[in-house]
Amino acid sequence: MGIQFKNLDQSKSGKKLLKGAKSANLKSLLTEDRIRDYQIAGPAGWRFSYAARPVDPQAVQLLVDLAAEQDLAAKYRELLNGAVMNTGEDRLVLHHLTRGQVDGPVRKDGKDLGAFYRSQLEKIRTFTEQVHQGTIKGSTEKAFTSVVQIGIGGSDLGPRAMFLALENSVSGKKYLDAHFISNVDPDDATAVVASQKLETTLFILVSKSGTTQETLANENFVREKLQKAGLNPDRHMVAVTSETSPLAKSSRYLASFFIDDYIGGRYSSTSAVGATILALALGWEVVERFLKGAHEADVAALEPDPRKNAALMDALLGVWERNALGYPSTAVLPYSQALSRFPAHLQQLDMESNGKQVNRFGQPLKYATGPVIFGEPGTNGQHSFYQHLHQGTDTVPLQFIGFLESQAGSDVVSEGSTSQTKLKANLAAQIVAFAKGQTHENANKMFPGNRPSSLLWNTKLTPEALGALLAHFENKVMFQGFLWNINSFDQEGVQLGKILTKSVLDGSASDPALRAFAKILSV
Amino acid sequence: MGIQFKNLDQSKSGKKLLKGAKSANLKSLLTEDRIRDYQIAGPAGWRFSYAARPVDPQAVQLLVDLAAEQDLAAKYRELLNGAVMNTGEDRLVLHHLTRGQVDGPVRKDGKDLGAFYRSQLEKIRTFTEQVHQGTIKGSTEKAFTSVVQIGIGGSDLGPRAMFLALENSVSGKKYLDAHFISNVDPDDATAVVASQKLETTLFILVSKSGTTQETLANENFVREKLQKAGLNPDRHMVAVTSETSPLAKSSRYLASFFIDDYIGGRYSSTSAVGATILALALGWEVVERFLKGAHEADVAALEPDPRKNAALMDALLGVWERNALGYPSTAVLPYSQALSRFPAHLQQLDMESNGKQVNRFGQPLKYATGPVIFGEPGTNGQHSFYQHLHQGTDTVPLQFIGFLESQAGSDVVSEGSTSQTKLKANLAAQIVAFAKGQTHENANKMFPGNRPSSLLWNTKLTPEALGALLAHFENKVMFQGFLWNINSFDQEGVQLGKILTKSVLDGSASDPALRAFAKILSV
Repeated sequence: MGIQFKNLDQSKSGKKLLKGAKSANLKSLLTEDRIRDYQIAGPAGWRFSYAARPVDPQAVQLLVDLAAEQDLAAKYRELLNGAVMNTGEDRLVLHHLTRGQVDGPVRKDGKDLGAFYRSQLEKIRTFTEQVHQGTIKGSTEKAFTSVVQIGIGGSDLGPRAMFLALENSVSGKKYLDAHFISNVDPDDATAVVASQKLETTLFILVSKSGTTQETLANENFVREKLQKAGLNPDRHMVAVTSETSPLAKSSRYLASFFIDDYIGGRYSSTSAVGATILALALGWEVVERFLKGAHEADVAALEPDPRKNAALMDALLGVWERNALGYPSTAVLPYSQALSRFPAHLQQLDMESNGKQVNRFGQPLKYATGPVIFGEPGTNGQHSFYQHLHQGTDTVPLQFIGFLESQAGSDVVSEGSTSQTKLKANLAAQIVAFAKGQTHENANKMFPGNRPSSLLWNTKLTPEALGALLAHFENKVMFQGFLWNINSFDQEGVQLGKILTKSVLDGSASDPALRAFAKILSV
Repeated sequence: MGIQFKNLDQSKSGKKLLKGAKSANLKSLLTEDRIRDYQIAGPAGWRFSYAARPVDPQAVQLLVDLAAEQDLAAKYRELLNGAVMNTGEDRLVLHHLTRGQVDGPVRKDGKDLGAFYRSQLEKIRTFTEQVHQGTIKGSTEKAFTSVVQIGIGGSDLGPRAMFLALENSVSGKKYLDAHFISNVDPDDATAVVASQKLETTLFILVSKSGTTQETLANENFVREKLQKAGLNPDRHMVAVTSETSPLAKSSRYLASFFIDDYIGGRYSSTSAVGATILALALGWEVVERFLKGAHEADVAALEPDPRKNAALMDALLGVWERNALGYPSTAVLPYSQALSRFPAHLQQLDMESNGKQVNRFGQPLKYATGPVIFGEPGTNGQHSFYQHLHQGTDTVPLQFIGFLESQAGSDVVSEGSTSQTKLKANLAAQIVAFAKGQTHENANKMFPGNRPSSLLWNTKLTPEALGALLAHFENKVMFQGFLWNINSFDQEGVQLGKILTKSVLDGSASDPALRAFAKILSV
C-alpha cells in the first residue's frame, strides 16, 4: 500500500477545513493554561508557541486528523529517501542530505549522493583553510582579504541572509569580509566592485546551470574590472555549479565546487552554494554548526504528531489560516537585527515553492495555495507597517521570532532596562496587543484584536539555531506543499519572462505590446 | 460651498465601483494604441503607463467621475494651504511645504511655516558646509569622515532609502560615509558602532517627540561608547527634533534642527529628518535637486483630470484594484538596485497611512482600505517571488519602476548586450508576460495572464527624479486616503503596543497572557 497523493479537497478533513471557519476568539482563549499547553519543544533549543494562532481545540484536532490522513510524515520520509518528489522535472529532492543522512544512503544511478555532497563540503573546507593560511592567493601573490558572491535568487538571498545572521555571532576572529552581487543592473556590480580592493578579493560565481543570464553578465563585468586592474581573473574566482555545466572544471576558476539538480536553488543554503562564502568569511566551524542545527531540525520534523512537531504544526496552521479563514498573506517578524534579510529569503522559499495553481500531476486546483510572504525585523516594523496589521481592514497572520539574549552581548541600561530587555518586552506586548486588542469609546483608538501570531524563540541566534530555524521553514513549506498536493520544488512560473526577455534581446519579439514596451524603454 | 468629505460608499461613482467588477481582459486590450494612449507625462521627466492596469475605457471614465465627485484636487489644495487634514490629532499636514510653496504662505498662530522649514534647511546647509570645510570638528579636533543617523520608522526608512538611491548618483565627490542605527536590538548599534572610527564620526539623533524609546536607548548606547573611547559625546552629535521636545536646544548637541507636528514621520524625508544626512553625506546641492523634483511633482499633482495627473490616476487605479476587484496586496518592483530599500519605505508610507478601519470622523468603514505593500528590486525578485505572481492562485497588482540609463554608467557587453539593456528587456518582458500570459497543453506551463501592472519610467535616477518619485507615492497615498475618507496622517494603531511594552518594563502588566509571554522571554 503506497502513499497516496491527494488534493486537499479530496481528503475528509481537508473538505471540512475548506468549508471555512470563523477565527477562534483569542480574546477569551489566550489564557496562561493555553500558553503553557500550546508549546512545542523543537530542535537546537527552539520552542514554538501557537497559543495565539486562530485555532480552538476542535480545529487543532482537525489538523491532527488532516496530518494523519494526508500521510505527511511518511511523505517526508519518502522524500528523504530519494523519491522523485519534483515530479514535473523528474528529480529527487535532496537538500536535507547536504546536512545529514536520516536513513540509509540515497543512491541515484549507483551514486551515493550523501557522500557526493559531503565530498564537496570537504573540498570547500580544504580550500577555505588554504585561503585562510595564505597558501592560495590572488594573482599578485597577496592573501585574500574579502570575498564576493556573484549569484541571484537562491544563490543570493539564502546565503546573504545566513551570512548577515551569523557575521556577528562568533566571538572569534572573522576571516574574510563578505559581499554580494546579484542584480543584472550594472549599478549593483559597480558599487560592490568599487568598494573592494580587487587585488585581494576572491569572487564566488554561483550558477547551477552555468547559464544564468544575470550571473554571467556580472561575471563578465567583474572579469573586465579585474583585467583592467592588471590582475588575472582566473586567479580571483571560484565556481559553484553542477558537474555538467559549462563552468565545471574550467581552468578559468581557482576551484569548482559542485551541487546537482536535486538541490533546488532556494533550498541550497546548506549546500556548497551557502557553505563556500560562510566558510571563507566566518570559518569552517561555523558551517559545521549551522549544518548540525539544520540536521537536528530535519530529524525532529519526522515526528508524525503535529502537537510534537513544530514545523508540521506550523504548516497545518498556515493552511488553516489560508484555506479555512481565507487570509491571503503572512508576515515574518524576527525581533533580531541579524535576521534583517531572513524574511526576504523566506519570501522566495515560500512564494516560489508554493505559489502554484496546479497539483503535482499538473491538474488545476480549486483552492488557494501559498500566501504572500513579507516582513522586516521588529522593532523596526512596529514603526512602519504595524499600523496596518493592528487596525487595517484585513487580517494578516504573523510569525514572530525572538531570542532571550543578543548576539554580541554589548548593551546599555537606559530608563531602567537594557535594550535587549526592551526588545523582548516589545515582542511580548505585540503578541498580546494583536490577539486581545482594545476596546475604546473612540473608534479610532479601538483595536479589534483576534489577529493571530505564533512565536518561535531560542536563547541566542547561534549557527546551530540558525540552521534549525532555516530547516523549520523549509520543512514547513514542504509539508504545506504536501497538504495542497503541489510540487514545491519546480518553478515553471519563471520561464515565460526569460523567453520573452530573450526575444527582446535577439530582436525576435513578435508581440506588438512587447515591442512597444521595449521601445518605450529604449531597448 | 465647502468641500465635502464623504465615504467611498456615499458617492455615486464609489457605490458603482464597490459593486465589484471583472478584471479587464488585458490579453485583448493591451494593444500598441492603448500603450500610446494610456500614458501620462509627469514631473521631472517621469512618465506613467497604465496600459496594463485592469481597466477598460468604461472603468477609466468611472474613475474620472469619482475624482470629480470626491473633489480630490480641491481637497489636496486645501491640505497644501493649511487645512486641519490630520483630524484625529487636530494638525495641519505640511510636508509639501518643506520643498516649496504652491499658493500663499501657510500660517499657524501667526507663524509662516514655509519660512520656518526653509530656515531649518538653511541652518543645515550652513552646518554641513562647516563640517565639510572642517570648521566644525569632533572632540579631538579631527574632521568628521562619517555620519550615522539614529532614528526609527520615518526617521530611518525614508532617509535610508533616499541615501541608498542617491549615493552613487553623483559623479562628484561623496563627502561623508553614511550609516544608520534603528532597531532597539543592541546588536544593531553594536555592529554599526564597531564599523566606525568614532573619533571622526558624527551622529544625527532623530526623534520629533524626543521620547522615542528605541532612539533614546540607541543614543545612550552610542554616548557610552563615545565616552569609553575618550571622546566627548556632545561634540559628536546633532539632534533633529521639534522645538518643544526635551532634546531641543540642549547643550548635549553640536546643533539642533527642527521640524514640527505638521510633518508626519513617514512624510519627513524632505524635511530636516532626511536633509541632514543627505547633505552631510552627498552635499547640499543634492538636497536642493531632490527637493526641486519633489516640488515639481507636488505642482503636477494639482491637475484635476486624472488622465493628466499620474499620482491621481495611480491612486484611483489602486482603489479600483482594491475595492472593485478585491486584490489585497500590491508589489512595488523597481528595476534599479539603487532603489533596493524604496519598497520598504513605501511599505511604511502606504500601510501606516491607509491601514485604517475608521473614517476621518472616527466612524467604522464597510469597505477595504490600504493593501499590503511589499517588493524587492528586479531582476532579483524575478528569481524569488515572481513564481507566485505569475502562477499563484491570487492576483497581485504590480508597480514597476524603470530607467533608460544606469546611474554610474559603468557597464559590460555580454552575449551581445549591456547589462542595462538586459535589465530593461527583462522589465518589458515581465509587463507583457504578466498581462498576456501563455496558453500551454501542460497546465504546469500555463500562465493565466491578466495580472495587472503599471510602469513609471525616467531617463535616469537623478536627485530630481527621486524627489518626484517620492512625491508621486506620497500624493498617491494622500489621494487614496481622500477616496476612502480616512485620515492618512495619524497612526493610532501603534499606541497599544507601546502601552503594553511600558507595562511589561515597569512591572505593571496585568493581563496574565502578557505576563506569561514576558516570562517565556525572560523579560
